[in-house]
Amino acid sequence: MNTWGQGLRLSIFGESHGPAVGITLDGLPPGEEIDMEEINREMLLRAPGRSELTTARREPDQVEILSGLYKGKTTGAPVCGLIYNVDARPEDYDSRLRPGHADWTALLKYNGFADMRGGGHFSGRLTAPLVFAGSLAKQALLRRGAEVYGRIAGIGPVKDQALACTPEAWREIAQKAFPAVDEAALKNEIVKAKDAGDSVGGIIELVVFGLPGGLGEPFFGSMESIIASMLFSIPAIKGLEFGDGFRLAALRGSQANDELILENGAIRSLSNHNGGILGGITNGMPLVLRAVVKPTPSIAQEQRTVDASTMQPALLKTEGRHDPCIVPRAVPAVTAAVALCVLDRMLAAKYIS
Amino acid sequence: MNTWGQGLRLSIFGESHGPAVGITLDGLPPGEEIDMEEINREMLLRAPGRSELTTARREPDQVEILSGLYKGKTTGAPVCGLIYNVDARPEDYDSRLRPGHADWTALLKYNGFADMRGGGHFSGRLTAPLVFAGSLAKQALLRRGAEVYGRIAGIGPVKDQALACTPEAWREIAQKAFPAVDEAALKNEIVKAKDAGDSVGGIIELVVFGLPGGLGEPFFGSMESIIASMLFSIPAIKGLEFGDGFRLAALRGSQANDELILENGAIRSLSNHNGGILGGITNGMPLVLRAVVKPTPSIAQEQRTVDASTMQPALLKTEGRHDPCIVPRAVPAVTAAVALCVLDRMLAAKYIS
Amino acid sequence: MNTWGQGLRLSIFGESHGPAVGITLDGLPPGEEIDMEEINREMLLRAPGRSELTTARREPDQVEILSGLYKGKTTGAPVCGLIYNVDARPEDYDSRLRPGHADWTALLKYNGFADMRGGGHFSGRLTAPLVFAGSLAKQALLRRGAEVYGRIAGIGPVKDQALACTPEAWREIAQKAFPAVDEAALKNEIVKAKDAGDSVGGIIELVVFGLPGGLGEPFFGSMESIIASMLFSIPAIKGLEFGDGFRLAALRGSQANDELILENGAIRSLSNHNGGILGGITNGMPLVLRAVVKPTPSIAQEQRTVDASTMQPALLKTEGRHDPCIVPRAVPAVTAAVALCVLDRMLAAKYIS
Amino acid sequence: MNTWGQGLRLSIFGESHGPAVGITLDGLPPGEEIDMEEINREMLLRAPGRSELTTARREPDQVEILSGLYKGKTTGAPVCGLIYNVDARPEDYDSRLRPGHADWTALLKYNGFADMRGGGHFSGRLTAPLVFAGSLAKQALLRRGAEVYGRIAGIGPVKDQALACTPEAWREIAQKAFPAVDEAALKNEIVKAKDAGDSVGGIIELVVFGLPGGLGEPFFGSMESIIASMLFSIPAIKGLEFGDGFRLAALRGSQANDELILENGAIRSLSNHNGGILGGITNGMPLVLRAVVKPTPSIAQEQRTVDASTMQPALLKTEGRHDPCIVPRAVPAVTAAVALCVLDRMLAAKYIS
Repeated sequence: MNTWGQGLRLSIFGESHGPAVGITLDGLPPGEEIDMEEINREMLLRAPGRSELTTARREPDQVEILSGLYKGKTTGAPVCGLIYNVDARPEDYDSRLRPGHADWTALLKYNGFADMRGGGHFSGRLTAPLVFAGSLAKQALLRRGAEVYGRIAGIGPVKDQALACTPEAWREIAQKAFPAVDEAALKNEIVKAKDAGDSVGGIIELVVFGLPGGLGEPFFGSMESIIASMLFSIPAIKGLEFGDGFRLAALRGSQANDELILENGAIRSLSNHNGGILGGITNGMPLVLRAVVKPTPSIAQEQRTVDASTMQPALLKTEGRHDPCIVPRAVPAVTAAVALCVLDRMLAAKYIS
Repeated sequence: MNTWGQGLRLSIFGESHGPAVGITLDGLPPGEEIDMEEINREMLLRAPGRSELTTARREPDQVEILSGLYKGKTTGAPVCGLIYNVDARPEDYDSRLRPGHADWTALLKYNGFADMRGGGHFSGRLTAPLVFAGSLAKQALLRRGAEVYGRIAGIGPVKDQALACTPEAWREIAQKAFPAVDEAALKNEIVKAKDAGDSVGGIIELVVFGLPGGLGEPFFGSMESIIASMLFSIPAIKGLEFGDGFRLAALRGSQANDELILENGAIRSLSNHNGGILGGITNGMPLVLRAVVKPTPSIAQEQRTVDASTMQPALLKTEGRHDPCIVPRAVPAVTAAVALCVLDRMLAAKYIS
Repeated sequence: MNTWGQGLRLSIFGESHGPAVGITLDGLPPGEEIDMEEINREMLLRAPGRSELTTARREPDQVEILSGLYKGKTTGAPVCGLIYNVDARPEDYDSRLRPGHADWTALLKYNGFADMRGGGHFSGRLTAPLVFAGSLAKQALLRRGAEVYGRIAGIGPVKDQALACTPEAWREIAQKAFPAVDEAALKNEIVKAKDAGDSVGGIIELVVFGLPGGLGEPFFGSMESIIASMLFSIPAIKGLEFGDGFRLAALRGSQANDELILENGAIRSLSNHNGGILGGITNGMPLVLRAVVKPTPSIAQEQRTVDASTMQPALLKTEGRHDPCIVPRAVPAVTAAVALCVLDRMLAAKYIS
Repeated sequence: MNTWGQGLRLSIFGESHGPAVGITLDGLPPGEEIDMEEINREMLLRAPGRSELTTARREPDQVEILSGLYKGKTTGAPVCGLIYNVDARPEDYDSRLRPGHADWTALLKYNGFADMRGGGHFSGRLTAPLVFAGSLAKQALLRRGAEVYGRIAGIGPVKDQALACTPEAWREIAQKAFPAVDEAALKNEIVKAKDAGDSVGGIIELVVFGLPGGLGEPFFGSMESIIASMLFSIPAIKGLEFGDGFRLAALRGSQANDELILENGAIRSLSNHNGGILGGITNGMPLVLRAVVKPTPSIAQEQRTVDASTMQPALLKTEGRHDPCIVPRAVPAVTAAVALCVLDRMLAAKYIS
């Protein structure tokens, strides 16, 4: 199922060590100006090989736009963005199933025909085209007053400091290459894991400001459903919560309810335990969510596994290129995904008058 | 967006205090025997008015099957299940927006035309048809060796005891009207909240045994995406995690990876931190997930709000019928949702040979 | 595949001799006033048993609206319309496959589990809920200036007279119970077929006036594709053409092109060979299409067939209730289908500003 | 709406005079061997510049497969095929709306932002990626015993001779570069139109042999609906009929019904007036359809039109490269479309056992 969306329609393709990865995005309104510099800036935030904390694979991740753009503006026709793979090294992979990766399940599903070198179509590399599409969506949203920001809220057992839920605070954090308040402490967890030949997971927090109320639909199109359906496509995401999320279990209704007041004639809530979504529909308060990213399965420690070609037990130790922590590179993917969901709902929401 | 699914196609309708709620389920294989007694048993687990821990509204929730069934078996044509509302009491509601409910967001979305008496189309009452459809799905799954079980893993700050991940343990717990190991302790939390004129949230845990490997699809059709897209349709669900979920953030890769071994010629994993899903595809291990249910917004305490008809500040205190804790009645809805997702993927998964 | 649509979402269910047929229609804008009298008027145009030219089965076809309506207006939630079957007579049918009907193909598809009494889910009776949904769509369209009209353009070898492509001419014809200019000549063909124990086919012509330009989408969402995907759902439709249709094969480009002129500052075409659609997109000229309806397969003449229960040759002669010509009753179904397509595109077409 | 399909999912992109056109095809079973030579052969049948009867634009139409293929076989992941535009000449086009083309309607839809040089995204050039995808589908179908063939059944007023409905007769005709029995007579019509500075339309006939019964679904997924939804995406198609099509209007039921007999224990029909489809479901007889192709709108004769940039009346005469008749190049597009529809239904049809 390589397609997604209703107001927008995404179609993704490619493998980690094949010729290219890419995405086609249909449904963008015509006449949207496209800022290629901004696209490149976002692509580099996700691209590998940019710091000692990421894999050594080095991809320029320059997007070639093949359609849907004319004189610097969208035409209304589908936009296809293509990213050729440059630094592929398929010889790094053999038939031993890498624990924690999709190698095993792809074998079950595709009877051995899948190209699983570096994860193939299951690779985190597929988030490169997603970030491209998300950048187009963010530009369209910004023109309509909505801003999407993400940050690293924790690495391993270390939580980042709380951050005020204001556009100012989040704009500032989002400009950092490592978007966290207590950058040093979190980075240190990654370095420690790397030095131990290991990897580490973390938490990403995301806020959308300036979102109009009324987005999302009952019953199956709740804003949470839409966002979750795309966020859980991003490899390594294993949990997602909105507003106070799992902490709501321990609260009483009197603590969890967001009371309503009037402000300049408009309704707003005094608190935001529901993260900007009630009954699956946005209420105009900031949309807040948190997602957990599991530790990268590729580690420099020996693990028990099975060789798929001989169906014999084997041992595997990843010597080559891999990320000790995928969380920083996942932030632009997560913000891209949410931006696409929000724009999808805005495009699908309007009634004829 | 009242439709959902690919292998199965659901279409839901109805309002809490309208004539009826119902669902149409298309795509069921022909020739499936339908056990109406089992359907009724599941309907009653969700139905209101069955214990002192639930709302006093009393609905028989008897399903009338209007189509798709002939001589006790599915025909292959869409199955429509209809549930007439019997004990509606729309006069209980006025134009004051109930904090924490969808009243406010429905107002934003539908310009005041929505029938929001008792939550209208946003009501938890819509889970009644979902439980009916889920019961059909569970019966089809059971015939194919897959079993879906849910339990209450926590109410308020109290966690239930751990439960072994075996079919035997879960079959037993699933037969209880209040499916928890330490029933008394959890029920006590509900009673305490009720006595305080308040409500309380909780955690639901769910396991699927006997699931075949290879279900789910890259990129946008991960098993997690499919399940999340439906689970977040159920009112009050605000978070969802698979396998170790949010605890994965604090783990190292060497702790979180599930090593692979051979057992009777088949691959399996030694642990199940990934909850039976790798790369979005099932691996044949038990599928494990946890969802958080927020405290019921309706409480017998005064809360600040706004009157939608006068657009003036107002106070609201729910005197009437409501649940102090929705978690027990949400368990059959959550298992229904997951059963439908699993069957959807099984129906969509087969390749022609 | 009982669902259809993007801007609107239809979900249909029911069998000819089961308890009921019905449809759920999601996506109607909130606040649309619903005229039940107009719905009933349209239902009766399609309903059986209203004249000597139709089957003797007599169904009131009164629609019960179960949801989505509040104080006489749409709420924005799905509208479910239910029609109970009243005059079913399932004992009229046995296991002999009726030639020309779906009995044979349903057997191939559903392994004998389908309820095929009277065609079951394949019956023309399924157009009753379609006409209901179409009536809602027509009312919404009329408020926005678009009018959908159909007429009988031919029965058997007899063609009706040409009709001017003006709203006035079509409004007049559409008010007739038998919407044709030369009513007597066409009716006579039906009587002749009936008297011969036979049946006869015909042609339906349809025009939409007041359609805005810009509806439909490249590549797969051409207005022709959308309309065709629904029209070919109506039993007995075997061909469809837009504008000059099949006559275009014999024309030169210089004859078939519609030249463009300016009229009050707006572009229009001098002719309408393309039937209001260019490149799959409406141009604001009247949308014109013609569909062929095959002769009713049920006839009072002996035909060779196979008995599905014994798998032996058999003879079949329909003695009971059936239509000598389904064309008049198909007109409201065809206009309903097109009205739903047009509204679907109007709802899906708007861009955010 | 650049996506299509359920069992297969297509996503198309590109413009006539942009960098490239392409398609992504998801859902192909893994392990299908791909014959690139056969793909190239089909691409050339559609490609421009191959004979004096087509436009002088010369495109090699070599497909670059970017994903989903590994060691010559499909992997189960999406297959993206890319075709760079080589011989574009955008300077041939100005702001005068070409009558009969989509220029006018694209202006209405996209407010002037569309890239309409040579028809842009509305161009017949988009059928190049469709033919590529169709060739993959045909190869998969052939391995399963189904064969799809098309022929030119008429050009202008001249009809081709009747052709026996046997695989042998159609295999032979399909090998011709100009697939017609009376090649000379039909070609002569094209030459005459060309010499007159004009263009001409025609009819394409298509047969599928070896199709299994039971494909297609009630209510909205009839085989006719599925095929029509894609065929009407192909530019210039304005009508479509199945089996005897529009001729059914004039027939009696006793003439139009296909009587059933037993042959080697299997049911078959004595005639095939319904073109292999009953009740929207295939019956295993040859699927037969006919589509009309309108005359190419670009002609070397002066036509009245409007200049979109000045909104003034203008005259237009196409001097440059264009096809006097698009029918021959449309044959591979039509067979590709139907092959994709058939494979889509085969992939969507299987039930779990």
